[in-house]
Amino acid sequence: MNFKLLIQYDGTDFHGWQIQKNKRTVQGELQRVLSLLEGSRVYVCGSGRTDAGVHAEGQVANVKMTKSFTAEKLRQAINGNLGKDIRVIFVERVDEQFHARFSAKSKTYVYRVVNSPVMSPFWLRYALHEARSLDMEKIKRAAEILIGEHDWTAFSCADDKSRSKIRTIFSLDVKTRFDDRAQAKMIEFYITGNGFLRYMVRSIVGTLLEVGLGKLETDSIRKALETGNKKFVGATAPAHGLTLLRVSY
Amino acid sequence: MNFKLLIQYDGTDFHGWQIQKNKRTVQGELQRVLSLLEGSRVYVCGSGRTDAGVHAEGQVANVKMTKSFTAEKLRQAINGNLGKDIRVIFVERVDEQFHARFSAKSKTYVYRVVNSPVMSPFWLRYALHEARSLDMEKIKRAAEILIGEHDWTAFSCADDKSRSKIRTIFSLDVKTRFDDRAQAKMIEFYITGNGFLRYMVRSIVGTLLEVGLGKLETDSIRKALETGNKKFVGATAPAHGLTLLRVSY
Repeated sequence: MNFKLLIQYDGTDFHGWQIQKNKRTVQGELQRVLSLLEGSRVYVCGSGRTDAGVHAEGQVANVKMTKSFTAEKLRQAINGNLGKDIRVIFVERVDEQFHARFSAKSKTYVYRVVNSPVMSPFWLRYALHEARSLDMEKIKRAAEILIGEHDWTAFSCADDKSRSKIRTIFSLDVKTRFDDRAQAKMIEFYITGNGFLRYMVRSIVGTLLEVGLGKLETDSIRKALETGNKKFVGATAPAHGLTLLRVSY
Repeated sequence: MNFKLLIQYDGTDFHGWQIQKNKRTVQGELQRVLSLLEGSRVYVCGSGRTDAGVHAEGQVANVKMTKSFTAEKLRQAINGNLGKDIRVIFVERVDEQFHARFSAKSKTYVYRVVNSPVMSPFWLRYALHEARSLDMEKIKRAAEILIGEHDWTAFSCADDKSRSKIRTIFSLDVKTRFDDRAQAKMIEFYITGNGFLRYMVRSIVGTLLEVGLGKLETDSIRKALETGNKKFVGATAPAHGLTLLRVSY
């Protein structure tokens, strides 16, 4: 039986998604618990990795089990054995062909920035604090340049081993709202694409923030896409502001 | 100079508002920092105490200083010396007569409940988890009974030393919404009154939840108000779901 899992995690205390020896990772935790329930080692396939400190409101994974569980019983059994910073919020039996990574059509990330003199304690783990004022019109114009199919070499990690650095960004919406809890301005970068290289979203956001601060020209973004040269992009934004929102199939 | 401070804190790692020897408290932290800035001991007067684990999105305090600071410099100096789970978000110079407690006209608390089979990691510190289904109509009808001036003896802590147990609840709104981050139903109890006895809000919420679960009859609330007998109220709801939202002057 092939099960699709919808997963949330607070990434603060995880060394990212991918299983690593002697480190607490999301995949490692899920495989530990599911192997326990199966009675033998199972592989939990995620839609993609998230880096250390990155959160997920809607990560998706699939797992093949021989033991028979109803979806609800499986969800309860998994959650009963996990730390509270990770939760399987929905389980569904799916076709054997379903593959959390290869079947994914698009992914949406959100990067949150509290743009205010003071950082609210309530967003400390989940948003970047930027006290300086940002030129939102400039940021929005720069964001438009990034939409579409591009070679993202300049925006990816130097040691990213992906054969192709070509990915398509379907949408990049920059939304500003007043957040009641923070009592401050919140800027949210919503980025949907068919796939992302390592550090790509954080590099995009870091670059857009530097454009907003006047440290980088909008034209620098065109040059980065054309040349693949990292000197045209901004510093990678920190992991804790990033959240994997949803995966679409 | 009398300064009014608007304060946020994540109550998780505090032993409440009130200063206590050898314990980390909000008032203790603020007095430590402000005494440092003044060069001698100052008293930070809060609008009221919050219990251990209770949060504040909008606590108010005032402090009298002889050293001259602009409001903004004072805010920066305080925040620079505090842990990140407490933040002064606004400072304002006020009339010498302003007193954070005695000048307060009303206070509003919110108590948050994630009402869903699974508890989202993102609300773990700030909301109660209730997996069972709740009769919201019953809860709303019961809430209406509580509005107005009453003797709250049944809803207060047995060792509350307040001379009068009479307080007025101006409004008690129970709002249900779908929370995107939790991907779950969120119930919020908004309670505004002219003052609250110790444990009063948590006792009200605990009682309303038991009404919603069918463990207590609506009539029990009338009896609790009339008799002051604790046997008619529900268990006090846990501290971490409660947040002081604002104080009005």
